[in-house]
Amino acid sequence: MSDTTTALIALDWGTSSLRGFRLASTGEVLETRASAHGIQHLPEPGEAGFEAAFAALCGDWLAAGPVPVVAGGMVGSAQGWREVPYLSCPTPLAGLYEAAERVVTRDGVEILLAPGLIFEPEGGTPEVMRGEEIQIAGTLAGRPDWQRASTLVLPGTHCKWAEIRDGSVTGFGTYMTGEIFALLRGHSILGRLMSDAPVSEDTRNGAFARGVAQAAEAGPGDLTRQLFSTRTLGLTGQLPGGALADYCSGLLIGHEIVSGLRDSGDGPVVLVGSGALCARYGEALRQLSRQDPAAIIENPAPAGLHRFARDAGLLRQES
Amino acid sequence: MSDTTTALIALDWGTSSLRGFRLASTGEVLETRASAHGIQHLPEPGEAGFEAAFAALCGDWLAAGPVPVVAGGMVGSAQGWREVPYLSCPTPLAGLYEAAERVVTRDGVEILLAPGLIFEPEGGTPEVMRGEEIQIAGTLAGRPDWQRASTLVLPGTHCKWAEIRDGSVTGFGTYMTGEIFALLRGHSILGRLMSDAPVSEDTRNGAFARGVAQAAEAGPGDLTRQLFSTRTLGLTGQLPGGALADYCSGLLIGHEIVSGLRDSGDGPVVLVGSGALCARYGEALRQLSRQDPAAIIENPAPAGLHRFARDAGLLRQES
Repeated sequence: MSDTTTALIALDWGTSSLRGFRLASTGEVLETRASAHGIQHLPEPGEAGFEAAFAALCGDWLAAGPVPVVAGGMVGSAQGWREVPYLSCPTPLAGLYEAAERVVTRDGVEILLAPGLIFEPEGGTPEVMRGEEIQIAGTLAGRPDWQRASTLVLPGTHCKWAEIRDGSVTGFGTYMTGEIFALLRGHSILGRLMSDAPVSEDTRNGAFARGVAQAAEAGPGDLTRQLFSTRTLGLTGQLPGGALADYCSGLLIGHEIVSGLRDSGDGPVVLVGSGALCARYGEALRQLSRQDPAAIIENPAPAGLHRFARDAGLLRQES
Repeated sequence: MSDTTTALIALDWGTSSLRGFRLASTGEVLETRASAHGIQHLPEPGEAGFEAAFAALCGDWLAAGPVPVVAGGMVGSAQGWREVPYLSCPTPLAGLYEAAERVVTRDGVEILLAPGLIFEPEGGTPEVMRGEEIQIAGTLAGRPDWQRASTLVLPGTHCKWAEIRDGSVTGFGTYMTGEIFALLRGHSILGRLMSDAPVSEDTRNGAFARGVAQAAEAGPGDLTRQLFSTRTLGLTGQLPGGALADYCSGLLIGHEIVSGLRDSGDGPVVLVGSGALCARYGEALRQLSRQDPAAIIENPAPAGLHRFARDAGLLRQES
């Protein structure tokens, strides 16, 4: 029988939401909760807002006695509970705790906040992440092969591509794919022709693949021209309104993958995030490189926070 | 003394505005008027709305007797007064009138509507324009050198690059540069760090040039990653908030020019549009190709409409 004693409370605390996990000492997730109290939507302003959000979500988990608490994400940003400075890449993931910062609630509960990462390539522009490093740590936990060499892709509003070598994040890049897609669909001329009119799965997948194929042929700078074809393919009836969003998504994801693969090593590509979106990335990856993603990992945050806590010495030794 | 007799009424009728020009037989602009009655902002719905908008802006120009009237732009689209089908490229600009359509008001005034252009490259996606063909015709009027071979660039919400050979538009492309910049500034995470805090002209120009330099180094697909650096350069204090919009603009315009020049011939590059925006394109062009624009042409629409009317035989022979 597994041990169901609470050994750790782990918080994945982002801009728009707060997720809490009650973990066993093994890292097993015993309970998951979520609230809308992201750092920009706290119940009251200032430090008290963070305390109130935490107490509302997890207060009863502490009723039986003290339990270590860790948190990752925007809670450690300049707009968070306390700013935890970025660690510079290359960063050994096992050393995140060395840069962590501690906050203490009025009730005396200590919470260890994880740092974000910064990557400043020579002659390039800086890259930052906050929260994804925890997901990366969780994805790599128990996978020495991926720790040795892999490329982790975390699709979303701002998609991260992280290069892993010998247990360290050696560098990473951020693509605005998700945000730009949302802007184009919601606010641009392209969105006007996109409709919810039902079209077959085949038509939608075909439109997505057509966008990816366009991306494969793109030269430098071609994206904003190719995007306009979302409109003209609709205007000329070559694609139905119900498939235009798929085409546009294929273009954007395709461009991202073309660029990301060029800067990646030859380790396996691991997709991290929601299944539906990662499936799309997997399709585009196959189309562009004839390789399958090594895996799709959903929700590695609890495992990452568990590892962070263990590295920090907050957990009793597992028996 | 020049002849100030009204020989032609020319309308540049777009989505959001209507401009009217009273022209002499030579093409000289005798008077210019504008109203907000673009085809999506008519005083009343349907055909009557077009008539009312026209009468309100230009009715008195017809008081002394009939004058030929021509119009170009979205007024000839499916949402316009009457749909004028697209002409296929390559299109001789002198033959626009052959595809024109006539509308007649209740008062018996005939208005000749210019067609748009469509370009369907083999194996590519279709391109369309409506209104720019008139500006192109006006830009090329009296310039046999540019008619022979040139690249015309029309910056704006949707920037057109048109390739000219022997008096014909042989092909063109559309870049969403202006619209995407507006979306990023107004609605994206990048806009949050952009401020109106005053910074020196040098700083702003330097930030623009830095964006263009990034574009010069971009591989296929890199745009959405480079755009995110607008944020990180602001976050890390490497660029002041008042210069971030310039940097972002340099990135987008730079990418466009890298792509556009690759698909262009070796004729001169002529910029067509507002002086301030064209000046920025000129800077980026110099930085990326060490060539100056051959010229910046502002407001060639009246000349284009005059040429269209003359080709259609609506003007008395000039003496």
